[in-house]
Amino acid sequence: MSELFGDRLTDAARGKAAPICVGIDPMFDQFPAEVTEGIDPGDTDAVLDAVFDFTTRVLRVVAPLVPVVKFQSAYFERYLWDGVEAYYSLVREAKDLGLLVIGDVKRGDIGTTAAAYADGHLDDASADDTDDVAMPDAITVNPMLGADTLAPFVRVARETDKGLFVLVRTSNPGSAEFQDVPLADGRTWSELVADRVATIAAAEGMVGSTGYSSVGAVVGATQPQTMRSLRERLPKSIFLLPGYGAQGATADMTRLAFHPGGTGAVVSASRSILYAHKDKGYAARFGDDWERCVEQATLDMKADLGRVLG
Amino acid sequence: MSELFGDRLTDAARGKAAPICVGIDPMFDQFPAEVTEGIDPGDTDAVLDAVFDFTTRVLRVVAPLVPVVKFQSAYFERYLWDGVEAYYSLVREAKDLGLLVIGDVKRGDIGTTAAAYADGHLDDASADDTDDVAMPDAITVNPMLGADTLAPFVRVARETDKGLFVLVRTSNPGSAEFQDVPLADGRTWSELVADRVATIAAAEGMVGSTGYSSVGAVVGATQPQTMRSLRERLPKSIFLLPGYGAQGATADMTRLAFHPGGTGAVVSASRSILYAHKDKGYAARFGDDWERCVEQATLDMKADLGRVLG
Repeated sequence: MSELFGDRLTDAARGKAAPICVGIDPMFDQFPAEVTEGIDPGDTDAVLDAVFDFTTRVLRVVAPLVPVVKFQSAYFERYLWDGVEAYYSLVREAKDLGLLVIGDVKRGDIGTTAAAYADGHLDDASADDTDDVAMPDAITVNPMLGADTLAPFVRVARETDKGLFVLVRTSNPGSAEFQDVPLADGRTWSELVADRVATIAAAEGMVGSTGYSSVGAVVGATQPQTMRSLRERLPKSIFLLPGYGAQGATADMTRLAFHPGGTGAVVSASRSILYAHKDKGYAARFGDDWERCVEQATLDMKADLGRVLG
Repeated sequence: MSELFGDRLTDAARGKAAPICVGIDPMFDQFPAEVTEGIDPGDTDAVLDAVFDFTTRVLRVVAPLVPVVKFQSAYFERYLWDGVEAYYSLVREAKDLGLLVIGDVKRGDIGTTAAAYADGHLDDASADDTDDVAMPDAITVNPMLGADTLAPFVRVARETDKGLFVLVRTSNPGSAEFQDVPLADGRTWSELVADRVATIAAAEGMVGSTGYSSVGAVVGATQPQTMRSLRERLPKSIFLLPGYGAQGATADMTRLAFHPGGTGAVVSASRSILYAHKDKGYAARFGDDWERCVEQATLDMKADLGRVLG
């Protein structure tokens, strides 16, 4: 691997003509009946087998359609170490299918501790010497502790051609409370973080031939009012936009995140795609064929974004 | 278990006459030669055995002296799922020795994802039905995403008599950048977070008979200038104070965190205790007896704090 992450993601999104990230949030109680049939929810081994089965099948459906998937670590960590092993195994599955993989781990800590997180979540050298598991191509990180605490992640990303997505403005209802608060200097707190991240993203060796940096930003697609300001402050960062679908963001709300030509952002959707079989419209059309529901929800999202992005 | 975490920690600190938390940050390259002898640093299984051996022996030394230990998750996650299994196993070892255990995981995410983290890191029901592993008594959480994202953690803490330590002001050199920044309303960003956390900490069912809440705060002991304000804003929260020792905080700098009587805070030290054998003074006195170095460093810290707290 010799290409910078910002280039790889931009090229992959272009190649699939879909600035879409499918979020892998495996929730056993949301799985289709076919996958959970006969499984005792208290039998962790059997539940994890179902997680593996469901996720692998979702990956096979979406791999031809989208450039990147995002694994939500919490849904694996809830099954303790067996879940963590499943996480790294499924990252391998996704990469074998040609997908880029973002590990949504939102880690952040100080000095040597941050370095340990970067080792365990981003550095290929920490993966076993087997073909069974792999490290993500990028992870999400939490900047609250300060820009100095991002440095170990940036170092590993630089050394291994990996990427980072720094939380700048999240998509949850209460995000405004600590993130949109106005500072004495007139900026919001998120704008302060964005300005600092912009410097990191523009540093030597981080920006590829597409003009995009390997240091991106998470910006909730539910917040169009802050999108314009953050886009201006972070010109070289690819935005990862959660909130589409189940969280209520529309394609229109994401438009300001993209540069002309439809680059510079990927819109992430999890539940609206993974659990499309619960949508009455899809269920009516495809019955028990939940994989067809996943496929159609992905195609519909692609068409929806395409309409807006032109 | 029927006692609230805030009471359990306060009582335990009183019982040991030591408001001290020993931070378990296992770094193989810092271990005493006796522990690492003959081990190939590239042999993860052997390294993890050494982590287990070293940590268990540290726990046995400090268990009679301190009320609580804090496991830094990153140093286990760097060894992927085998490291995570070691983490939960060592939490069990610590609890069996009568120690309270804080999991320093600094998790934070939205809605159902936060709930999954709370399940996997705090809820005893998620631990295997064996005696081999256990869940911590409390975890650290990151509030950046908003107070709504703390709610799932608070719910699990309330239901299971567990505790939380919310990051309010960290101990790293760059912490001021995003945390001390002045807001338009005159507060700093950390003060805004503190005021919000104070409401959560004072909620019904969270405050025990000692007057302390099960929702505490992480406040870096390296920042005496902000300590007074945060102490006033969070009267019911126990402060977890990192930064003593290796990070440069002195006992004097922690004084403002304590209420009269020496309650309301625990000072955390990791490297200055775990790796006391690297201190020339201890090495000269105790030679290769690294466990004696750990013990003396703990006793010296206790005396140091006692001098200041009176």
